[in-house]
Amino acid sequence: MHSPDAHHSTLTTPAIILVRPQLGENIGAAARAMSNFGFSDLRLVAPKNGWPNERAVDMAAGAAPLVESARVFDTLPQAMHDIHYALGTTARARFLEKAVLEPESAVTALDEAAREGKRCALLFGPERTGLENEDIVTCDALVTISTAENASLNLSQCVMVMAYEWFRRRPEAPRVGRPALSNPPAGREKLEGFFQQLEEYLDAANHFRTPDKKPVMWRNLRNIFVRAQLSEQEVRTLRGTLRALYLRRRETDAD
Amino acid sequence: MHSPDAHHSTLTTPAIILVRPQLGENIGAAARAMSNFGFSDLRLVAPKNGWPNERAVDMAAGAAPLVESARVFDTLPQAMHDIHYALGTTARARFLEKAVLEPESAVTALDEAAREGKRCALLFGPERTGLENEDIVTCDALVTISTAENASLNLSQCVMVMAYEWFRRRPEAPRVGRPALSNPPAGREKLEGFFQQLEEYLDAANHFRTPDKKPVMWRNLRNIFVRAQLSEQEVRTLRGTLRALYLRRRETDAD
Repeated sequence: MHSPDAHHSTLTTPAIILVRPQLGENIGAAARAMSNFGFSDLRLVAPKNGWPNERAVDMAAGAAPLVESARVFDTLPQAMHDIHYALGTTARARFLEKAVLEPESAVTALDEAAREGKRCALLFGPERTGLENEDIVTCDALVTISTAENASLNLSQCVMVMAYEWFRRRPEAPRVGRPALSNPPAGREKLEGFFQQLEEYLDAANHFRTPDKKPVMWRNLRNIFVRAQLSEQEVRTLRGTLRALYLRRRETDAD
Repeated sequence: MHSPDAHHSTLTTPAIILVRPQLGENIGAAARAMSNFGFSDLRLVAPKNGWPNERAVDMAAGAAPLVESARVFDTLPQAMHDIHYALGTTARARFLEKAVLEPESAVTALDEAAREGKRCALLFGPERTGLENEDIVTCDALVTISTAENASLNLSQCVMVMAYEWFRRRPEAPRVGRPALSNPPAGREKLEGFFQQLEEYLDAANHFRTPDKKPVMWRNLRNIFVRAQLSEQEVRTLRGTLRALYLRRRETDAD
C-alpha cells in the first residue's frame, strides 16, 4: 500500500495539503504549527504567489526546513496521489452529502484510518474562499472548527488547531503537570509544627479575642496554608517569618 | 465584586493579557483569534513597539475594533487590577511551586473560578522570552501547551489554542454535524427497492456465477450502498444509472 522508502512518520502522521494558498506568511506559519506538533509532510497545490516563497521561509522560523521540503503540485488529485483518507476543512455548511466532524472527532477518524494502514491528509483551502466544491468531492468527510460570530479563521490558525488536536491525542505527547519541585512537599507533621507555633503566638497575642470565635477563625486560617500545598522549605520560611513578626510585636509590647 | 457597569461577557469570558508583546502582527492575529472564539477583553502591558500599532489593526482583519478597544497598561499589576484568577502560559517548566495545567484542565479551572464569581485572565509573555518569573508569581497556576520537539509556539498561535479550547466547552458553541440535507435520506424501503432491481439485473446478467458465491458477494455489494447513507434523490439517480447500464448490456447482447 505504501512505497517501501516512505518514512514511518509520513505513514501515521497526516499530510497537510494547502490548496491554492495565497500568502507566503500563512504557508510559513502553517509549517511552524506543523513542526510544533510533529507533522512533516507539507504539500502545496498551485500556490498563488509562486514557489519557492521567501516570506514562507522567514515566517516558518525554526520550521524553515519543512517549508523547503514542501512538495508542490499543479492539481489536488496529483497532491493526493498516495492518500487513502482525506478530510477537508471548511467554515461553511455545504449542501453535499458528507459528514461534518468537529476537530476532535476528525482526529478519531484519522486515527481509525491510520490504524487500517491508510495514509491520511488534511486539506485546507485558500485564504478568502476556502475549499471549492470540486475539492470537497475528493474528501471522505469534512471538518469544521466551531467559532463565535466571527467565523473567518486565518489559514495558519486552522492548521494550528487541527495539528494541536491531533498531537494532544498522541500517547507519546509529553504530559505536563506540576514540575519536579525544587523542594519536597511538607508532610503533615511539618505543617502541624507550623500550626502549633502559629496558634501559640496568636493565643499569646490575644488574636482570637473570645474563645467562641476561635474555632472558626482558626480553621479558616489553617485552611489557607493547607490549600497552598507548601514545601518543607516554604514551611521553614513561614516559621521564620512568624517568629520575626512575633518577636517584633513583643518588643513593641515591651516599649 | 464587579463594577456594576461591566458587561456580562467580560465577567465570564477571560481577559487576554499580552505582556510586553513585540510585534503588532502578533497582537492583531491574537485579537482575530479572540474574536473567532468570543473573547472581547484585550489588555496590553507595555507593548514594545508602542501603541496604537497599524500592523496590529491590519492583521486583525474583522477584529480591528477589538484591537482599537484594547486597554494598555504600564505594568502587569495594573493590567490585573480587577482580576481574581489568572493563568500564565509558559513553554518551559519552572522551578516555582505552581501547578502546571494542560489547556483542557486550564479551561476547567477558569470555568470553576468564573462560577465562583471571579474575573479571570490568561497571560501570554513576549515573543522570544515568554513570561518572566516575576510575572508568573502573580499567576494562580500555569498552562503549558504540549508540543513536539519544536516547542517555540508563535504568540498568536498560543492565544488561538487557548481561545479554541475555551470556546469549544461553551454550551452555546454551535455544534457542527451533518448539514441539513438538500434531500431527505433514503428510507430502508427505497433502498430495498434499489437492491431488488440491482439483484434482478445482476442475476439476469449472471454476475454471481455460482449460487454458493452469491450470498457473500451480494452482502458485500449491498454493504457499500448502505454505508453510503444515500438520500432519496441519490437512490433515484442510482436506479436510473442501473437501468441505463442494464439496458445497454441487453442491447449489446442482442447484437
